[in-house]
Formats: sequence, structure tokens, C-alpha cells
Amino acid sequence: MLKLIPLGGLGEIGLNMMVVEYDDAMFIIDAGLMFPEDYMLGVDIVIPAMDYIRENSRKIHGIIITHAHEDHIGALPYLLKEIRIPVYGTAFTLEIVRNKLVEFELNTRVDLNVVNPGETLSMDPFEIEFIRVSHSTIEGVGLAIQTPEGVVIHTGDFRISHNTDPLKNTDLSSFARYGEKGVLALLSDSTNVEVEGYTMSEQEVAKNLGKVIFAARGRVIVTLFASNVFRIQQVIDIAVKNGRKVVFNGRSMEQIVAVAVKLGHISCPPDTIMDIKQIKNLPDDKVLIITTGSQGEPMSALVRMASGVHKHIRIKKGDNVILSSKHIPGNEKAIANIINKLYRRGADVFYSKSADIHASGHAHQEELKLMLTLTKPGYFIPIHGEYRHLVIHARLAEKMGIPREHVLVAEDGQVIVFDHKGGRIDGQVHTGRIMVDGKGIGDVGRSVLKERRELSEGGLVVVTMIIDEETGVVLYGPELISKGFVFDSATGHLVDDAQCVILEIVEEIEAGMDSRVELIRARLKKALKQYFSYTINRKPLIVPVIIEV
Amino acid sequence: MLKLIPLGGLGEIGLNMMVVEYDDAMFIIDAGLMFPEDYMLGVDIVIPAMDYIRENSRKIHGIIITHAHEDHIGALPYLLKEIRIPVYGTAFTLEIVRNKLVEFELNTRVDLNVVNPGETLSMDPFEIEFIRVSHSTIEGVGLAIQTPEGVVIHTGDFRISHNTDPLKNTDLSSFARYGEKGVLALLSDSTNVEVEGYTMSEQEVAKNLGKVIFAARGRVIVTLFASNVFRIQQVIDIAVKNGRKVVFNGRSMEQIVAVAVKLGHISCPPDTIMDIKQIKNLPDDKVLIITTGSQGEPMSALVRMASGVHKHIRIKKGDNVILSSKHIPGNEKAIANIINKLYRRGADVFYSKSADIHASGHAHQEELKLMLTLTKPGYFIPIHGEYRHLVIHARLAEKMGIPREHVLVAEDGQVIVFDHKGGRIDGQVHTGRIMVDGKGIGDVGRSVLKERRELSEGGLVVVTMIIDEETGVVLYGPELISKGFVFDSATGHLVDDAQCVILEIVEEIEAGMDSRVELIRARLKKALKQYFSYTINRKPLIVPVIIEV
Repeated sequence: MLKLIPLGGLGEIGLNMMVVEYDDAMFIIDAGLMFPEDYMLGVDIVIPAMDYIRENSRKIHGIIITHAHEDHIGALPYLLKEIRIPVYGTAFTLEIVRNKLVEFELNTRVDLNVVNPGETLSMDPFEIEFIRVSHSTIEGVGLAIQTPEGVVIHTGDFRISHNTDPLKNTDLSSFARYGEKGVLALLSDSTNVEVEGYTMSEQEVAKNLGKVIFAARGRVIVTLFASNVFRIQQVIDIAVKNGRKVVFNGRSMEQIVAVAVKLGHISCPPDTIMDIKQIKNLPDDKVLIITTGSQGEPMSALVRMASGVHKHIRIKKGDNVILSSKHIPGNEKAIANIINKLYRRGADVFYSKSADIHASGHAHQEELKLMLTLTKPGYFIPIHGEYRHLVIHARLAEKMGIPREHVLVAEDGQVIVFDHKGGRIDGQVHTGRIMVDGKGIGDVGRSVLKERRELSEGGLVVVTMIIDEETGVVLYGPELISKGFVFDSATGHLVDDAQCVILEIVEEIEAGMDSRVELIRARLKKALKQYFSYTINRKPLIVPVIIEV
Repeated sequence: MLKLIPLGGLGEIGLNMMVVEYDDAMFIIDAGLMFPEDYMLGVDIVIPAMDYIRENSRKIHGIIITHAHEDHIGALPYLLKEIRIPVYGTAFTLEIVRNKLVEFELNTRVDLNVVNPGETLSMDPFEIEFIRVSHSTIEGVGLAIQTPEGVVIHTGDFRISHNTDPLKNTDLSSFARYGEKGVLALLSDSTNVEVEGYTMSEQEVAKNLGKVIFAARGRVIVTLFASNVFRIQQVIDIAVKNGRKVVFNGRSMEQIVAVAVKLGHISCPPDTIMDIKQIKNLPDDKVLIITTGSQGEPMSALVRMASGVHKHIRIKKGDNVILSSKHIPGNEKAIANIINKLYRRGADVFYSKSADIHASGHAHQEELKLMLTLTKPGYFIPIHGEYRHLVIHARLAEKMGIPREHVLVAEDGQVIVFDHKGGRIDGQVHTGRIMVDGKGIGDVGRSVLKERRELSEGGLVVVTMIIDEETGVVLYGPELISKGFVFDSATGHLVDDAQCVILEIVEEIEAGMDSRVELIRARLKKALKQYFSYTINRKPLIVPVIIEV
């Protein structure tokens, strides 16, 4: 019996991780992180719960990484810390993985194995062909997984791009070849299923970028995701054509470009790349800076430039800043903020609302249809999306002629089963989202987040008091300390009155009672809450520290 | 000398407020709020700083409200609490204002005066004609302000709509009439200046809504802004045509609909409107519910439905939920969340990405150009926008032939002056954003927000200790209480070790020292920060409570 078990990515964007299982053999596809939701205050990243993997660790043959994005590799160090299994991926993907493992001091202990697109990996009883797909990073692959029950196609993240260079395109012929032979099930990327039509080609993007850069008189600053290596190469080509020198800035940009250069994915005439310190020696119209910060990340190079605190670059009138990237939901305000700041410093800013200078890496509706048409799957399983994406993708497949009962909308943890009786959802394994905060993995949960939210909205008031155990007399306090509550200068009478409220409570409760302190604590919390709510309509967290001596 | 002084809205979306001044006479246009930015933790709303108005209160003749949206009326109660001036607006606008004032217990003290579109208000030396504009609420107006220096046109928030009913359209002829006679300056809405083309007409929206509702077999639930009265009427018309009864749900919806019915803006055949409790007696295909929550507001009717906690409505398979509204930046994730939840409960969901069922109330580029063409202003001043909107609108005006030195990009607080020497920006008055949190106005500032942010990200640790003043011996503690830090169960060894760290510090510092407690407090904070950073890489706020007895 073949089992496909999504541990993440089917119900959210990110967190991609799937287990493929047949009897005693298992392998994993991807180990991605998710960036925290708004309510996950203070949380750095989210990773999938891996209990199922832990319980079955001796069955696992390895993990395949489809491409080098964080939502596919970000949880890998956490997996490899616990379980030593070989990792398979393309050369570029594994180089990025290696850099990541170095950060976690795991690099020496891990077995990384390059598999090129077109090659087949054997993990008995599975034979897995890596099929090249176009995406917003390079060397992405989809997988054709031959199993005893039939062939399962996993697209990874993909789009269908029509570029003159076939290495930039999805290898449609290979998908078609499997379609001809017969595909048991297609698992396909749902991220952009809400968007009609086709993605723009990278050549089109380059043409539009070229126009903007050609028209620029001053410096040009291009921000994009560091992993978007094709586009970086295209921007370099444009720079060369325009006689501009290229400067890379931002840690992740420099790191990924180094890998891409090493593997031959980025190339340019000698003396094209300059160090950032050399900028001041160049005329403005000879400068093109490629940098990070397209999402308004607080410490990124672009944000530092926009805020006037960048070490080497001060934005000035005549500068042209190009944001060649999408606005990830949740980042819109941060990005808008930066654009405003750049305008205020006199720069011209080009972004997706104002120019077609970005194309998504995820297939739009027509491309998704094409994938269905080429692979002719018996079953269809939408992957990589929030719940609505999965449902909409499922309906698209139905409209394309897949019978409704052969379209399986599964969510994280649900077991998709294939055997002689066909395919179905049958069973459930434990899964979930594990929040990582600093070095703590999973020690921030619902109650901690609730407290953080309360603290963020109303601050807190600590009440300290020492009471004589025998007599019930207050020996010290009540002293009130507040944080994140109101301006200190505004607390004067508030504090005085609150102290009266507290003292009244203390008096009401008889000395020597067994649960006296508990009782005071509870009543004091309630009374102060009411008091602050009435006087200034706020709800600070009340922390009573009551000591009997 | 004529002065136009924006106190808000020129540098942000929302907060709209402008002072018009000539010698000793002043009036105000709008008093809007802004919803808090992400970093304004716990803040309810933001209002403009009104110091300039306060200082000149005896000069003020009144305030004109251009329309009934919160970003134009939300700060009005705070203004009227301080300064009693007459309020002018259209009938609907003033009814909504009245409801608001009731909430603030201000209604009996305020002088509200209806001015209809086409009528002129005199406030010596100003003559102000109210000109009907189309917007996403009804009875919006722009203003033609005759001043001793010439006519100033203030568009308010507007779009140019082509509906068969002229009462739904912007009164282009009146704007043109002023253009013919000569306009000193045009102040025009910049909100949608980034968007090409024209806004869709409300008739087009209705057509598309009609298709969706006609095709629906189960219940239909439409969410939109309660103030979008035209569209509510159109949805009612569609319901009637489809033989569906209409139920209004949500407090603001019921309130505004009541006003609209009273003023004749909403009408329908008898027995069309039903109470929500009657739904259960109707077949599903006879029900249409109009409700609030299009922005995913936490306590709104739609969110309660999607979460399964609505008192009367449980979402079920076959329900059709239509979100006929834009996704306000910052709300995308909340809205996506609701859509996912609705799908999970089996509903079909229609929203702007999937169907053309919303049109913006703010003019797109072509409409902005038309306003420039009709009014032929001598000077152009972009209003109502973030900084980038103002700059882009300014460039649009330049492209339309307004000389660059006649295009004035002003920001909040800058004084725009017109006299015999022409128009220019000259001077600055105090302005700013005042944060309102509960009943506190302006008592939450930078330091409080910084503490709230720290608390939200890392929680806090309170350290309590009693020390003998003479001997320096620790009599009680150190006791650690944490909130929003880590799970209680995970704190065990952390707390033990932290206590050791603290005790070491106490021992190091000599008893009887003058500043002993201060010193312990400072060192303890630093040491605990380092300790928690090293062990779990987190930064809780440390609150030491050290008592000497």
C-alpha cells in the first residue's frame, strides 16, 4: 500500500514537507519552514511537527529537496539534528543547503548527494526521476516517483516558462512522457491557482527592466530575492549593455551569488563586478547595485538605505530604485513605507504596481491546466497552498475532466492511500506547527502567545507588597511598577488611587487565613482590572508579587 | 493672504484634516482618524494633533465634513470635545456624525447644519459650494471655495462614475463651470493614483454580483462596508429580483441602514427585509444576508460565522459568501484566513481576486486627469495619500501641463500660501499623530510602544528579592515570575540557574553601600539578559523588584 502523508504545506503557504511510504520504506520530500503568522508574537520561524518521522526514523531512506527556497529547506537543520539521513538535490540546491547547515554547525555530519535533472534516484522500491522545472530560483525540480502502485508526479514549485534557453524552462517533454505511459496521481503546486492566465516570462521581465534601466540617468538600485539567480544574471547583462558596473550588497545576496558564480550560473565580463567601496569613484550613471530588502525586512540593505543608515550608500535625488519582486502578503505596509521613504529622499521608485518588472515563480491557472493535460493523472491532489487554494485547484481539475472522486483534497497529517481499491484519504498522523523562538523549539505555545498579546496591547503592572503573616499589616508597598502601560508622568494619580484600591482589599481579608495571599492576589487582580478599565479603559496584565513574612 | 494648512492626510491614508485660513477667518475641512500602524501596539485609533486649531480656536467659523467615512469624521468627537464650532455636511453625513457623537455623549452640545450638494455656505470671507461627488458612500461632496485670492477646489474623496442615475455620479458640470471661470488651485484625492485606467461603475459591479447571486442555489451572504449604501441598495434589488428575503446583520450595518432608510436612500417592496431570527423558517434559496466583516475584523459578523460562533448563522455546504469590498493593506492575512475558514465549512466564496464584484471609491489615473482637465487649475496640490501617492499625482499633473513650480507637494503641517506673489509652501505649524488607547489620548508614546514591542516579542521576567539592609543577606527570593516567556514546564532548570546568577551578583556587592540596590538592579538586568540570550537566545524584559528591609 502506497501512502502519501503531507506533514506541512497542505493548508498553508510554506512548511512544505511530505512523506512517501510503501510498506517498510519511506522517503521525505522537502523540509520547509513557514514565517510566523501575525499572532505568533516573537516567534522567529515555524517548522512542521515531525513526530511521524521520528517514530519511523529507521524506515527512512532519505530526503529530497526540490529547490533552495526557505519554505522547502528551512526546517531541514531541525530534522537533521535528530535524524541522520542522506539528502538529495541538485547541485545549486545542495550548496545553499550546505551554507544553511554551516550556520547550524551540522555541515560535517550530513551526507549530501547531487542528483541532476533527468537523472534517476533509486530508493527501493522507489525510482525517482528529477524533472527540471522553472521557478523563481534555479535548479528546481519536480519528481516522477515510480512506486509499486504506479507513477506519482510531484511538481514541486513550478511555472511553465517560455524562454529561448531551455534550461530556464520546465521540462514539459518529460512530464508528457510520463503522461503517455500513465500517471497514477499528480500532486501540483496550488500557490497561484487564483490567478488567471499565464505568468510573464523572465525574458519579458528583462525587457521591461531594461527599459527602466536604460532610461535612468543616475544610479540604479535593483532589489530582488537573492535566490532569483536567473534574474540577477539578466540584470547583470543589462548593466553590461548600459556600461554600468555591478555591485552586490546584502549578506544573503553575496552568499548566494558566490554559489551561483562557482556553479557557472552567473557570469559576466571581467571588471564588471565592483566592491561597494569603489562606488564613490564612479559616475552615477555607471553604477548598478543589486541588493536585498525587497520585502522591507527591517535590517536589510534597502531598508538601511531608505532610512539613511546604510554604511556606504546614501539615497539621493536621481537614484532609481527598482523593486523586482512580489509583495508577500503581510509585508505590504513595510514595503509601502520604504517606497515612501525612498521618494522622500528624492529617488524614483519602480515597483510592480507601476511597471511589469516581476513575474511570479508559481504557475497561473492556464499553466496548471497544461500540467494536468500533459500528465493525464488518474488522481489529482492539490499541494502547496492554503485551504482555499487547494479547493480551487481541485475544482479546476474537476473542470479539466478528472472525476470528482479522484480529486483528493487532503490537509496536513491526512494519509492519502493508494492500493488495489484505488486512491482515497484514509487515516491521520499527528502533525502541527512548531514555533521556534530563539533556541527554543516548541516551548512557545498558546498560553505564552496569549500573554504576549496581552502584554503587547496593554503592557503590565507589577504590584509588590510585603505583609506580616501574623498581623496582616502591610510592611511594604503596595508598590506599582508599570511597563508598556502609560507614560510615567501620566501615572501619578492613577498609582495613588490604585494603591488605595489594593489596601482596601488587604484590609477586608482576615489576617492568619490559610489562603490569605491567594485570595488577596485574586481579588487584587480583579479590582485593578476594573479600576484601570473604568479610569482609562485599558487592560494591562496585572502581576501581583505578595510576600508574607 | 490665503493659507491652506493640512493637519493630516498629506503623508498618510486617513487622518484627513485641513485648515483654510484668510487673515482672521478660518474653517476646517474634515477631522479624520487613521487606523494604527503595525508598530502602534495596543493603540485603538490615531487622530491628528490639533494644537494649531486650539491656538486659533476663536478664529474658526466651523468645520465641513465632506463625507461619512471614519478617515474624515473619526477625529471629530475629539475636536468637538475641546472646541464648540458648527458642523456642516450633507444630511446623510450628519446623521452618521450624530450617531458617532451619541457614542461620545456629545450629541446635545453640537450644532449640526445640513448643506445639500449645489448649495453654498457662507463663512465670511469664504463662499463654499458643495459639489456632489461619487464615492464608496453616499452624499459625498467636493468643495468649491471662493476666497479673496481665487477659487480653491477640494475634491474630497471622489471617483467619476457613469451611472444612469445622475445622483450616483460626480457633478462634472459644476467642476467644469468653475474651470471655465478660473480656478486658483485644485486639491485632489491621490489615493488611487498608482492605478491605471478608470474605476468600474457600480452598475457593472451590480451586474457581476447579479450573476453570482443568480447562479447560487443555497443561501447568499454578502459582506461590504456598511457605508456603501448604493451598493446595499443594488444588492437588495438583486435579492428582490431573485425572490430572496434580505436580512441585515452586524451593528454598524443595522445602524447605517436605518439612517439610509430614513433618508430615502434605501427602499424595497414591503416584506423584503426580515429579522435574522426568521431565517430558519425560509428555504435556503430565499435567503440573502447583508453583513459586516469584509476586512476580517475580529468581532465582526462574518468572522463569527466563519469561526462557528455566530448566534444565528452557521455556515454550511451550499452557502455562497460574497466579499464585495477591497482588501485594505494590512488586512490581507485576516481576510485570507476567513476565506479559508469559510471554504473549510463548505461555503463557496467570491472575492475580488475571483470575480469583479467590487469597484473602488477613489478615482484612478484617467479620472484624475479628467478632474485636472475640467478644473484647469492655476496650481495643483495633491491631497489624501502617502508621500509616494502625492509625488506620483504631482508628476501626473505636470504631464497634464501644469508648470512644475505650480505643483506644490506639501506634507502635514506645511503651510501653503497664496497672495499677490502667487502660491508656494511657506512655513510650518505643529502637527503630528496622536495615539488614542482606551480613554487615554496621547499618553502612549514612543517609550511605551517600545516596551510593548519588547514585551510582545520576548515576554518578561519579574525578579523579586528582599535583602537585609544591614547584613546584605537575601531574606527572600530571588523569585522569578515570567509572563509570555516560555512554557511554565520548560522553565525549571532555567529558573534554578538564573537564581544562581542573581545570587552571585548579590554576593559581589558589598552590604551597606549607598547605591547597593541600584547596582544590584543594573547588574542583575545585564546578567540575566546575557544568561537568557546564551541559553535560549531570547530577550525578555527584566523587571527587578528588590526591597531592602
